[in-house]
Parts: sequence; C-alpha cells; structure tokens
Amino acid sequence: MSFDTIIRNGTIVTASDAFRCDVGIRNGRIIAMAENLDDADEIIDASGLYVMPGGIDSHVHLAQPSGDGIVMADDFASGTLSAAFGGNTTVMPFCLQEKGSTLREALKAYHAKAEGECYVDVSFHIIVTDPTSHVLGQELPALVADGYTSIKVFMTYENLRLRDDEILATLDSARTSGALVMVHCENEDAIRFLIGRHEANGELAAKHHATSRPVAAEREATHRALSLAEIVDTPIVIVHVSNREAMEEIQRARARGSKVAGETCPQYLMLTADDLDATELEGAKFVCSPPPRDAESQIACWEGLQNGTFDLFSSDHCPFRYDDDAGKLNEKGKRNFRWIPNGIPGVETRLPILFSEGVGKGRIDLNRFVALSSTNHAKLYGLYPRKGTIAIGSDADIALWDPTKSVVITNDILHHGADYTPYEGLAITGWPVRVMVRGKTVIDGEELIAEKGLGTYLARARSPLV
Amino acid sequence: MSFDTIIRNGTIVTASDAFRCDVGIRNGRIIAMAENLDDADEIIDASGLYVMPGGIDSHVHLAQPSGDGIVMADDFASGTLSAAFGGNTTVMPFCLQEKGSTLREALKAYHAKAEGECYVDVSFHIIVTDPTSHVLGQELPALVADGYTSIKVFMTYENLRLRDDEILATLDSARTSGALVMVHCENEDAIRFLIGRHEANGELAAKHHATSRPVAAEREATHRALSLAEIVDTPIVIVHVSNREAMEEIQRARARGSKVAGETCPQYLMLTADDLDATELEGAKFVCSPPPRDAESQIACWEGLQNGTFDLFSSDHCPFRYDDDAGKLNEKGKRNFRWIPNGIPGVETRLPILFSEGVGKGRIDLNRFVALSSTNHAKLYGLYPRKGTIAIGSDADIALWDPTKSVVITNDILHHGADYTPYEGLAITGWPVRVMVRGKTVIDGEELIAEKGLGTYLARARSPLV
Amino acid sequence: MSFDTIIRNGTIVTASDAFRCDVGIRNGRIIAMAENLDDADEIIDASGLYVMPGGIDSHVHLAQPSGDGIVMADDFASGTLSAAFGGNTTVMPFCLQEKGSTLREALKAYHAKAEGECYVDVSFHIIVTDPTSHVLGQELPALVADGYTSIKVFMTYENLRLRDDEILATLDSARTSGALVMVHCENEDAIRFLIGRHEANGELAAKHHATSRPVAAEREATHRALSLAEIVDTPIVIVHVSNREAMEEIQRARARGSKVAGETCPQYLMLTADDLDATELEGAKFVCSPPPRDAESQIACWEGLQNGTFDLFSSDHCPFRYDDDAGKLNEKGKRNFRWIPNGIPGVETRLPILFSEGVGKGRIDLNRFVALSSTNHAKLYGLYPRKGTIAIGSDADIALWDPTKSVVITNDILHHGADYTPYEGLAITGWPVRVMVRGKTVIDGEELIAEKGLGTYLARARSPLV
Amino acid sequence: MSFDTIIRNGTIVTASDAFRCDVGIRNGRIIAMAENLDDADEIIDASGLYVMPGGIDSHVHLAQPSGDGIVMADDFASGTLSAAFGGNTTVMPFCLQEKGSTLREALKAYHAKAEGECYVDVSFHIIVTDPTSHVLGQELPALVADGYTSIKVFMTYENLRLRDDEILATLDSARTSGALVMVHCENEDAIRFLIGRHEANGELAAKHHATSRPVAAEREATHRALSLAEIVDTPIVIVHVSNREAMEEIQRARARGSKVAGETCPQYLMLTADDLDATELEGAKFVCSPPPRDAESQIACWEGLQNGTFDLFSSDHCPFRYDDDAGKLNEKGKRNFRWIPNGIPGVETRLPILFSEGVGKGRIDLNRFVALSSTNHAKLYGLYPRKGTIAIGSDADIALWDPTKSVVITNDILHHGADYTPYEGLAITGWPVRVMVRGKTVIDGEELIAEKGLGTYLARARSPLV
Repeated sequence: MSFDTIIRNGTIVTASDAFRCDVGIRNGRIIAMAENLDDADEIIDASGLYVMPGGIDSHVHLAQPSGDGIVMADDFASGTLSAAFGGNTTVMPFCLQEKGSTLREALKAYHAKAEGECYVDVSFHIIVTDPTSHVLGQELPALVADGYTSIKVFMTYENLRLRDDEILATLDSARTSGALVMVHCENEDAIRFLIGRHEANGELAAKHHATSRPVAAEREATHRALSLAEIVDTPIVIVHVSNREAMEEIQRARARGSKVAGETCPQYLMLTADDLDATELEGAKFVCSPPPRDAESQIACWEGLQNGTFDLFSSDHCPFRYDDDAGKLNEKGKRNFRWIPNGIPGVETRLPILFSEGVGKGRIDLNRFVALSSTNHAKLYGLYPRKGTIAIGSDADIALWDPTKSVVITNDILHHGADYTPYEGLAITGWPVRVMVRGKTVIDGEELIAEKGLGTYLARARSPLV
Repeated sequence: MSFDTIIRNGTIVTASDAFRCDVGIRNGRIIAMAENLDDADEIIDASGLYVMPGGIDSHVHLAQPSGDGIVMADDFASGTLSAAFGGNTTVMPFCLQEKGSTLREALKAYHAKAEGECYVDVSFHIIVTDPTSHVLGQELPALVADGYTSIKVFMTYENLRLRDDEILATLDSARTSGALVMVHCENEDAIRFLIGRHEANGELAAKHHATSRPVAAEREATHRALSLAEIVDTPIVIVHVSNREAMEEIQRARARGSKVAGETCPQYLMLTADDLDATELEGAKFVCSPPPRDAESQIACWEGLQNGTFDLFSSDHCPFRYDDDAGKLNEKGKRNFRWIPNGIPGVETRLPILFSEGVGKGRIDLNRFVALSSTNHAKLYGLYPRKGTIAIGSDADIALWDPTKSVVITNDILHHGADYTPYEGLAITGWPVRVMVRGKTVIDGEELIAEKGLGTYLARARSPLV
Repeated sequence: MSFDTIIRNGTIVTASDAFRCDVGIRNGRIIAMAENLDDADEIIDASGLYVMPGGIDSHVHLAQPSGDGIVMADDFASGTLSAAFGGNTTVMPFCLQEKGSTLREALKAYHAKAEGECYVDVSFHIIVTDPTSHVLGQELPALVADGYTSIKVFMTYENLRLRDDEILATLDSARTSGALVMVHCENEDAIRFLIGRHEANGELAAKHHATSRPVAAEREATHRALSLAEIVDTPIVIVHVSNREAMEEIQRARARGSKVAGETCPQYLMLTADDLDATELEGAKFVCSPPPRDAESQIACWEGLQNGTFDLFSSDHCPFRYDDDAGKLNEKGKRNFRWIPNGIPGVETRLPILFSEGVGKGRIDLNRFVALSSTNHAKLYGLYPRKGTIAIGSDADIALWDPTKSVVITNDILHHGADYTPYEGLAITGWPVRVMVRGKTVIDGEELIAEKGLGTYLARARSPLV
Repeated sequence: MSFDTIIRNGTIVTASDAFRCDVGIRNGRIIAMAENLDDADEIIDASGLYVMPGGIDSHVHLAQPSGDGIVMADDFASGTLSAAFGGNTTVMPFCLQEKGSTLREALKAYHAKAEGECYVDVSFHIIVTDPTSHVLGQELPALVADGYTSIKVFMTYENLRLRDDEILATLDSARTSGALVMVHCENEDAIRFLIGRHEANGELAAKHHATSRPVAAEREATHRALSLAEIVDTPIVIVHVSNREAMEEIQRARARGSKVAGETCPQYLMLTADDLDATELEGAKFVCSPPPRDAESQIACWEGLQNGTFDLFSSDHCPFRYDDDAGKLNEKGKRNFRWIPNGIPGVETRLPILFSEGVGKGRIDLNRFVALSSTNHAKLYGLYPRKGTIAIGSDADIALWDPTKSVVITNDILHHGADYTPYEGLAITGWPVRVMVRGKTVIDGEELIAEKGLGTYLARARSPLV
C-alpha cells in the first residue's frame, strides 16, 4: 500500500478506543491503520500526540445579521479559520430565514457568503422564522431531500421567536419531512416581563441581563418544547442548556419515552452570572443567552457531560466586538442591557477548554472527549461515518493534540474577529498542534498552511434520531 | 343560655376533630357547643348523624354564556338549589368578563342574575378575559378592596385564553392588589393542533375530545402557569387537576418554594376517557376539560387527596342539557366533538361521592372529608372563620349527614337543570339529610324548606396564601 | 350549666380551627365551649392568650439506665415537672427491656419509678432488646390488649440493636398483635466502622461523633427499616429524622403505598454538627444520635414539618449532666467521643422553640403547631380523643400561651435535672403561662401549683395506623 | 505487510464505530485494518458479516460446589466450549473461597480445574466468604498485585452471605488494595423470613421462590450495598439487577457522586415470575436469584441497557441439570422450592438474545451491543485494550456475526452441560458464525475447530473505576 500521507506513532482516539498505530491517508480518506506503515509522500511524526477526529462544532453563528447596525465579528473566512486553529474540521453555522423570504432565498445568501471562503468544511442549519404553509409544506420536504436535514426554532427574541402554534406546525412538518429540529428554549414573554420590571426599577446594567432571563424561564420553555415535540411525536435537540433544572426536563422527557438530544457549551462550565457584574461596562463581554448561571450549575453541566444528559458540546460561537459602536458597546447598549447584542465568541477555545478542564482534570476520559466534541455531532446531524471518527473509509479530518502543551488563553493568540475572549487568562494544558481537513494540513503549530476555500459545503443525510 | 336552635346528640366533625355534643345556634351563628344544651325554640335530634360544616363548592359555573346559542342548564336558582340538596351551604360561581367590557360591568350582570335567586350563600371569582391596563391597573385593586379577592384565567378555549404576556401582567396585578389567581391549565395551541389532526383523519366522535386534550397538554400548561407565577412571585391555584403528571408539577413547584394550591374534582375519580367512547352519541355526556383520563389517574388523584397535593375538592359544575339543541347535542356537536359544549353537572353529587367513595371506602377519614369539602375552601378564599367549620362564632352553615343512608344516584332524584347525570346508577352510602344556612333549615330530608333568596352574596377577605 | 372552672375570653386553637370563646370544665373534662359562660368555682381570664391542648411529648427518656455508671439527669419527678413547665400535659417515656428479662418485668420496674412521682400524665413505649419467642409470641399480644400499644426497636447501639431477623420477627409480632413499632434508624456496623477509622487516625474529639454517624448511615437504616416493614406489611414510625435524605426515604415508602409516620426534633432545626466542634470539651453538650447536620438539613426539616413528611415533633429528651463524672464528662468520655453518653435535654424547650421559630417566624400556622405538638401524638399513639385537642368530652389538658411573652432560654430558668441546655441564650417569643392537667392547674406563670403525683398512667388504644 | 490471517470485506463494529475494511492478524494480534489487505496464510471472507470483538462474559459460574450433593452442570471444558459457541472469547468464572480456607487455596483449586481445559480465555473473580484479617490484610493486597483484581461478596445465601461489618471490612481492604468489588444484593434475613412464612402456609412450589425474594429485598440490599460503599468511599459493581427499583438505587447513588457499575442479564429481559409457575415441576427450570420479575421490569431493564444505568450485560450462567437427582429435581427440591438449586444456564444464549431482541428489534444499536457484550467488561475488569475491541495491537479475539441467520433455540443445539435451556423455542435472528481466540478459529459455523486448552488464564490490571 502506498499513501499520500502517513501519520506515524500517534495514539488514535475514537469515541470508544485508544491505541497506538500508524494511519495511512489517500485521496483525503483514511484507508489504513496498522502497526507500521511506510511508502508515503508525506510522513507526519505523531509521537506523543493524540490522533483524534477533528472537532465538529454544530452550533456556530457566522455573518448573521443582528439588526440595528450591529454586525457579527466573524464572516465565514475568519470564523472557519478560528475554528481550524481550535482543532475543528467541520462547523455548522446557521442560515437565517428573513421574515417574508423563503428558505431557498436564505440558503442562496448563505451559500454565497461561504463559497470559497472556508478553511474547514461547513454545513447549514436553517433558522425558521416565518413558517408559512409554503415553507413547511413545500420547501422543507424538498430541502431535506437535498441534504438540508436540520432546522432551528427560537422561543425567544422578539424578531425570531415562534409561537406555540407555529412551533407545532414546524415540528409536524419536520416529522413528515425527516428534518431534525433544534430549539432555543427561553420564554420570551417572561423575559419581556422581567426586562420591563428591571427598567421600571432603573436596573439597566449588564448583570440584569442574567436576572431578566432566570432559570425558570429556560426550564419553562424547555419543558414546553419537549411537550410540544411529545404531542407531535418527533425528536428535538435542546441546545445550550445552562442549568440542572433544564437538564431534569430532558431526563424526564426521555423517561417518558421521548427522543431528545441535549447540548451544553463552554460558557456554562466556565462562567457565571457574576461575570456579568464586572466593573464598568466589562460585563457586556459575557452577555449571552441563556446567561451563565452559578457554581452549582457548572457542576450540574459537568455531570450532564459525564452521564449522557448531554450528547453534544458546542460553542454557540456568536461573536461581537466589545469596544465598537457596532458591537457590545453600541450607544444604546451602554445605557441599557437589553440592547447589548447577545452572544460571545468561542469556536476556537471550545475544544482546549473541554480537553484541559475535562480530560486534564479527570472529569471525562479521552473517549468521551471525542464523542462530545466530534463523533456525536457527526452522528446526530447525518455526517457519520464520513465525518466524526478515525476509521477506514472516513474523511481524513484529523486533529493532532499535544496533551502536554501549556497555553494561556489571551485574545491576541486567537484568530476570530472579536476583540476579546471571555476566557482571557485561562491556563490550558493540551492543544491541537496540527489540523488536517480531508488529508490536507490546514494548521501546523501556530501556522496556517492551507488556502482559503479548502473547506467545502456538506450535504447531510437524515439524522438517525428522526 | 337560650338558643334559637339546638342540634342535639350529633357527632360534630371538623377538619381535625370529631366529638359528641349539642350545638346551640342564635341569630344564625353557632354560640355554644356543650354536653347538654336546652332552652331553644327548635331542637333538632341528630342522634346517629354527623354534624358537619356545610359544603363549600368553590368551582361552579352558573348562568354563564357559552356562545353559539348554547346555554347552561342552571341559573342561580336551580344551581344553588341543587347545591343545597347536595349538602352545600356556599357556592362560588364564576363571573365572566366579556371582551371589551370591564370587570365592574361583569359583576353588575352577575349580581343581577344572583340577586334574590339563591338558596345558599354565593361569592364570585371573576374570569379575566380582557386584561387591559384599566382592568389590571385600576379595577382589580379596587375590587380586591371591595371583597372580590379571587380571579381566574384560562390557558385554553379560543375566546377565553390569555397569552403568556397577558397572564404575566394579570399575575403581577394580582400580586400587588392581593388577589388570588386560579388557572385552567391546558395548552390551547396543542389542542388546536390535535383537533386539526383528528379532523384531517375524520376522527370526529366524542371520544376524540379526550385524545385531542392529552395529559401532555395539561402537564405543559400546568408547568408553564407555575413557572410564570414563580417568575412574578405570586401564589396560584391549579384547578381541576386530572392526572399524576400534572400533580407532579404542583409537587415540584412546592419543592422549589412556590405557594400553590391544588384542586381536583369527582370526574377525575369516577370517570375515564372510556366513558367518552360510549355507544352512539352518549359519549357527549362526559365531555369536559380536562377530560377524564384512566384508572391509574384515578388512583393518582385519590393519592393527591390523601397526601395534600390537593387542598380542594370541587365539582367544576358546568351543566348542559344532553338531548337539546342548545346543549350537548346541538347540530354541530352531533357531527364533530369540537362543538360539544365542555362541562358536566356535579354540584349535587360532589359530596356524596367523596363521602361514599372516600370515607366509606377507607381512603380518607372524616376530618379530611371536611377539610377537602369545606374548611380548605373557606380558608383559601377568605371566608374563614365565618364559613367552613363548626366553631363558636361561625355561621351556622351545617349539614347533617346520615352515614348509613343508601342512595342510588339517578337523574330524577337530582335538582339541577341538566337532563342527565354522569353518575347514573352509582350506589352511594351516606347522604346529607338536613342542610342549614346561617341557622335556617333549607333542606330537610328530601324536602325544600326555605324560600328562594335565603342565600346572600359574600364579600371575602384576601386569601391567606397571598 | 355550672362548672368547676371556666377559661374566659381566650382564643381556642385546635389542629384545624381558631376561635374566641369561653371553655367550661367539670370533673376534669371540657364540657362546654360557648360565647359566654359563667357559674364556676374558678374563672381564669385568658384574654390575649391562646387556649391550646397541652403538649404531648411522645419521645422522652427518663430514669433509663445508660450503663457504665452513667445516669440520666431526670427521674419521673424532675422530667415531668420540666415537661409541665414546657407546656406539656402528657409525656411518653420509654420502658427498657433488659436482655434476659421479660417485658412485664421491665414494665413493673418503670411503673414503680413513675408511680406517685409524675406532674403530668404518662404512658410507656416498650423498648424491645431481647425479642425471644416468649416475648413476641406471648407477651406482646397480651400487653397490647392491656393498653401497651407501642414498642420501639433500635438499629444502633451495640447493646440495644436488633439484627434484621430480629426486627422482622418483631414487626411480624407487632402486625398480628396490633402494636405500633417505632424505629431508631442508624446502621450500627457502619458507625462502628467509622469509629474505628477515627480511632485509628487519633480523631477523638466530640465533633467526630457527628462524622462517625453520617447521613448515609441514617439514610441506609431508614430505607432498610421501611423495606423490612414493607416486607412484613406493617406500619412503622421513623423517629428523630435529621436530614433530607432520610426524609426522602419516608416519602418514597409512602409513594410505594406503605403506612409510615415521621418524627423530627428541635435539635435538627436549631443545631448543626458545628456545635459539636465547640472549644474544649463543650462539644459534648450537643452529642446526640442522629447528630445534628447542617444548615440545609435544618431547612429540609422545616419543610418536612410544613408539608406533612413529619407527623410528629418530639423532644427526644435524653438528659445527662455535663460537668459530672456520671454524665457527659465522664473519664472515658473526656478522652474519646465514643464514651460520651448520647442525648440532650429538651422536654421543656420543645414547644417554645416550635412556637417562636415556627409560628412566630411564619413557617407554620397555629393549627399546624397544635397538630405537631399535641393532636398527632394523641391520634397516632391511641390517646385521642381523650387527649390532644380542645373538644367537648376531652380531658381538660390545656396550656394557655402568651404569644407575646419574651424569654431568653438559660439553664437556670429550666426545671430539668441537666446542668445545661443546648439552647442557652436563645431568645423566644411566646411561652406557656398556665398549664392544666385534667382541669387542675399545675403551672401558673413561673409557679408550680400542683402536687407530685397528679400525673397518672395512661393505657392506650391501638394506633389507627395499624 | 504479511499476515497470518486476513478477514476480508467484513464490517468492523466497535463500541463507537462501524466501517468496512479488511483486518490483518499476526501472532494472535490485530496489526492492520485497511481497505485492502492481502498476503496472508489464511483469508477469511466476511462479506455480509459483522466483525465484532468476541464476547466477554464477566459473570459465569463453572464447576462451583453447590452443597448437598448438588453439582453444577458445567466444568471448565463444557462451560468454555458453550461460551465459544455463543460468540465469546473470554469468560470470567468465580473462584469460591471455602470457609476456613485462604483465597490462595481457592485459587489453586480453580486454576487446577481450568488448566488445560478451556476453549476461550478465562480470568477469575474471587468470592470472599471468610474475610479474616489475614484474608483482607495480607492476601488481598498481594493478590491484586498478582492480577486478581476483582472480588465478589454475597448479601444472601446462608453459607455465603457476609454481614454488614464484614462487607465494610472487605470494601475497606478493596479500597486500599485496589480491588473492585461485585455485590449480589438481596437481603438474606428478609428472604428467610418470607420462606418461613411460605412454609408455614404450605406454599412450597417453585413459584414461591419468586415471592420469597421480592423486589423490596433486592432494592433494600442494593441501597445498603451502595451506602456501605459510599461510607467506605470505594466503587462497587451491582450485579444481575432485575427491576426498576434497584435500578433507581444505582441512579441515586451516582447522583450522590458514587462510582457504581451496573449489570443485568438475559433472564431479566426474557423471563418473568410467571415462568416459575409452570405446570408440574417445570417451574424449577427458571429458579434463579434474583428471580425474574414482570413485564414492566423487562421494559425497565431494556431502558437501563439503553440509558447507561447498566454497563454490563452478562449471563450469570449457573447451570444445573433439571431431571437429575444432583440438579433441580433433587429429592428435597421436588418437595420444597427452597432446596431447588438457584441458577440457570445462559453463557451460550446471552449474545444471540441481546443481538436479536436488542439490535434486531431496534432497542439498541450495534455499537451499544459491542459495548454491553464485550468492551465494557474488558474496560471495567482491567483487560482493556488487550481484550474487548477491534483495534491495532489488541488480541484477535473476534466473532463474525451473520445478522440474517435464523436460529430457533433448542437445547439440542447448545453445548452446555445442562439438559434444558430456559429459552427453548425462542426464535433468534443473528448468530455468531465464526469465533477466533487470539487469531485462532475455535468455532466455524457449527463446528469446533480448536483443541481444548487453547484458552489461557488472564491476569488483569486494576479496574479504572477504582
């Protein structure tokens, strides 16, 4: 056998196994794993390194309009570059339907944004904001057939939220067309009520973002989403779960026989609402929804990663610049937390945080790391076995990790478009030192090797959950 | 001491005690309990009987418009007469705000319906359907001050339901004005969705009423109501709970520290969804919301009565004639369950059923019977200690029960306006043989003694729960 | 009507009601409650006072041998005097079977200790330590017939504990004879193991008493006792529950359909394990079993008093002198916590603590206070309706409470035989200012009025739980 | 690369992945997986077959004395042969310490029984019945160092059970020496009590075996074992869990932070207590402990396999002949269920049942099948990565499964020593058609290829759980 590339002497890690061998790659795919391989154009020494499937980040916002002149800090070029530096080989950004437009129009726009710009592979979840009978009856079935097999609905944000009747209709269309539905669970009316109460009391600082979106508002919407899905009889994904009460709703739904996938994110492990109470305006840097909670919630989320409540660990990367009129510190946002754009950057730091805090501190093992960061995303969203594992026949999407490499996270070592990271100063042990997409090295150490446009769009199969 | 009336030799039963003594009444109030009393105008021999506080039915619909030419089968005269024959001395009907009208206008109309018509005392809960800022900001505080201290909101029925933002505003007004809020918990959108699915499948029989309003729709709305109340920080009453899952929501809310009262009704102990699947059109007789569930739910509701999940046992009396164009078998209702009016009669049978099936079969003791049927209603809704107990100073609202009297329930022995009872043929042991309102005998055996108009309107204090 | 005594103008409080009236007493029993009574030898003005049933403390240790020369600090005279000053009119001490002796022999001894010595009425629970076939097959049925209707078994203490087979046999005998079984739930073997570990580590201070008896040891034994009772199919009482995990076992057993009563004590509301970590040897003052836990456990126990997990609030009065060779600071006890006698005084402070911390701070209402402190004890242990309520025909066992009286607890105002109180310095609002046993005043303000020997022995009916 | 053997064109299945490739074996180990391999002495065509790690059955009784002249139906030869035919490549029988003997003596005896007799690899768990200080203080640490890294304790069976103090001492020794402790959880005293009750009632048939060992006895012992392990602070394995209540104990312990592994067996998926109520004496065939429960318990156990409550699926193979004086129908056993030997055969049917009922009926996927049947056993008991997976460097312990092969289980196609199977007549789809141990084919279709003695003893590393 001859290969384009051999990765030699590394420790292969999958979602269940870990073993030493060489990996042989040809035409972008893994075609051999064996004790000793030679005969290749390129031989990469992976001694002392973990050979893991590249990360898949299935919850990423890129180049998504945010209204009011606010702009996201990452387009597809910077966002996928940052992803690659963070050990990822596939990301799944959202494609936002504008009200009054069709899903096809939205997809056309996002394909245009992504085309030729990406450093890693991409695929879209479509955010449905206007579930007309045309959208649900005509478009969605056709789009699933074309490989757009997941959609997302919001229960919060005035301009994005769907009402219960719209959610039911959307879930019903997803059920018959075979789409998987992701749900952002927070009760918009409750939040509006609490914002109103805060405003009436003159409580306008960033920290009130957290108190205006309490656990009860997330728990309520989570239970409601799960109940509506139960009534329609279709699976859903509860994204970015922040606390134990919402986790219990997932567990209870499963005990009732529902099919549910659960996701949490680094911010719910590493931040708390206290971070929003920073001096001056700094709290704005941590404004995201649901907001980070408290120390007990962090413990709960770790438990969920361990015990299977969560299938997915994603970034919910949603980057805004901080010191910028078009970002966190826009004129209105400085005066009232409700105008601070919701979202924080994280596509580049997701995996190092999970590795260092999870594997390094004994909370999860290497196999669970791979499952949470890559394999489960591929399986759930219809990319497996092409993506998400180290196996014969799979794409050679590989991250080599040096488990001993020490890095202190600072914004200047990151590659996103934001001007800050919420994890400034965090000491990490373990970092991806080489990232390969379909056999081609994109990142080598701190260097970018590949050209923009290497990443391509991925049509996907139906989720096995549906 | 001299008395207007002495009740001699009975066994007084309160929510905690049971003891033999005589009861002395003057000017409509109990002024003495002692081993031997004499010197009275009237001496009633209660040997072998229980002397219990008259039943209080805090969930009754009388003379309430039902749209589409459908009319309720009871006005205040027939409804309160039926209540009296069933051992009750106070009922609390609803006063329905019409959309576009004020609460005061609604009260004026219902006072007019009740004035001079009642055989037992009455007080109103106001159903808020149009929570304008005038209603919530001006009227409600004034009404609470005037003794209208409870309101009700619906989460179902297209013409009655409030949206979450309206519920939040109403709860907030209740919180500041001191009103107690009752909530009918079923998710209207989910029910509409399932009705649509049934209609698409041509499933139009009465039994599909039950399947269009599944446990999940009730559980969801129950959890949502409790969450909204938690967010506003105000107590609520969850009325007519039909099943274990909704009960668990009440228990979970209490464990989170919320103040919640719970209520169930005879239909959830004695009927199941199978009753809606009767031959021909007979199933319509059992159409009410939430629908009766299954045998396990009956067990659960009994447990709730025993263990304190439920504070209240009410009838949700909502009577329609069956064989009547203006009742269950209206033209549209015959063809499609969605047009069958929702509700069943029960104000007269509530207490005999609880006594016979509860006390008689060893599920609850006499004290719990009194608590569930009378004392807790009086306490929760601000009528205690005037009503709801046998105590010095309290109104002499008394029912004498013969625990050995055998009665087979048939519609012809009942006094409501409906032309059927859902409990036809049910054998009962234990029946109220004399009912006194403020010291005056209204019912003696099977005879009506009092005049219409004996019952008066009761202003109420704030609930101790608020 | 003429009376021996009239209590005028007080507010009568029962487990369900509260109302103003006069109370007429003749021959030691309550024979009238009415708006105005006169014609009595003695008229007591109770204006501004609560007229409550005297407290019943169903968990008290008096004059019980403790081995090794250690003696309890109270005999029946001092113990019942202290009880009376604390608002109690009945106490139920334990009668300890010595190994090798019969239950009748034990009863003979305890009757001799009590005879003529008591200031309040007494009745015995028999501690079974030697469940021979004679004891279980012959004695227990006969004793139940004679009015000894409750027994207690221990799962801890080397000299008292029963093994599972012995517990099963005892429960089975109780089932057929109609006795109610109280169980002290802690796993002796686990405690021995942990004591051994502590000794191996040289950890010998009083605070290690608490760590040698962790929540897990109590939870385990609680679940085991409940499981054995479930297998035998007989009710039990779980006494002195200290924490949420054990409470959950009671709740789970009830949900499985078991009949279980639950009890907690003041020490689990007011003390924590930190109290055992006092300077020098002072920690010994707080050594009791189960040990007090932590602040969260206190919250849990309050919840249990509110929500019905607990039916009983008792003292577990088990007094030892502190600074005494025959008490806490015996020679061995000074050097190793395992020799500090287990138990604290509390019969006099139980009710003031529950009133002040419970009623006064809004955690429970007056009716619940009466239920927890008196009525439920009488009902559960077969003394009702003679004891435990203010009702016509009941014994005139009455405590008049002044809800405004402020008292700071110090040992010098108490009447027990111990030389300390664990509640030294605790400020109380609300205190019993007159205590009457069967119509005779025992305590008036701070004065003892009655003679020793007023209190008599009470035979009891079977528990309604069995 | 050249190989001893190539398996061509099969679908490799691991605990996380499934992919098509060839597998290359040399010197008994897997050294290559690749798209195309050639150059081998032997090429096996696996087209259409699954290439799975051979089953590991970590709960097997072979040649274990059963007292009273009763003998097990399998020695190491027949037992391991039956295992091989059932798709297994490693089994872990128990080595029983006789009271008064040392662990080393027991091991010597069992090594002698196994030596040269085995068709698959074996390793021993030591059953500790006599935990002397020598055994716990001297032997166990040395044995763990020698690769005997797991022990088992019984809470039932008069001659095997340990008391709580013995369990605590054993757990404590395991904690310090690094052994993993398996626990058989049933409360012996409760069972003795119920046997006595049955005997007193003349209830002596096989079906009373089940009623004498109710769920409560298993739940109790499970909670106790978990509590003792929590107190000692060491992990345990709860073996052969039969019902939801015991499962909940495992879940609760994990929620408290305990490390616990859980196991269930085919009998709890496929049999119920009704099977013990067969005509005549046939019920004896199904007598095992814990007994099979009911249909709901079967559902619960499937859920546990799906949701991770169970890590292990084992056979608890414990074979006795039925129609044999030395088996189920011994003279005493015919007359009284308590003398029927406890245990059923199952080492050969375990995997086909899990495959056909689990994978075939959509309850679990292929990866979960591999995890439950092989990988998790290897990991938990210290054999991984040598055993339990298809990976480079691992032993070539491989089962080729034909997912379409239909087999009706009858005893005459099985290879165990028992004269019956509890699964007679069960239709299976999916069967192992070739079984290889360290690269050598043992079974090919229905033919035995290897010689006795191929299987060797395996020393093991410490469990990663400890």
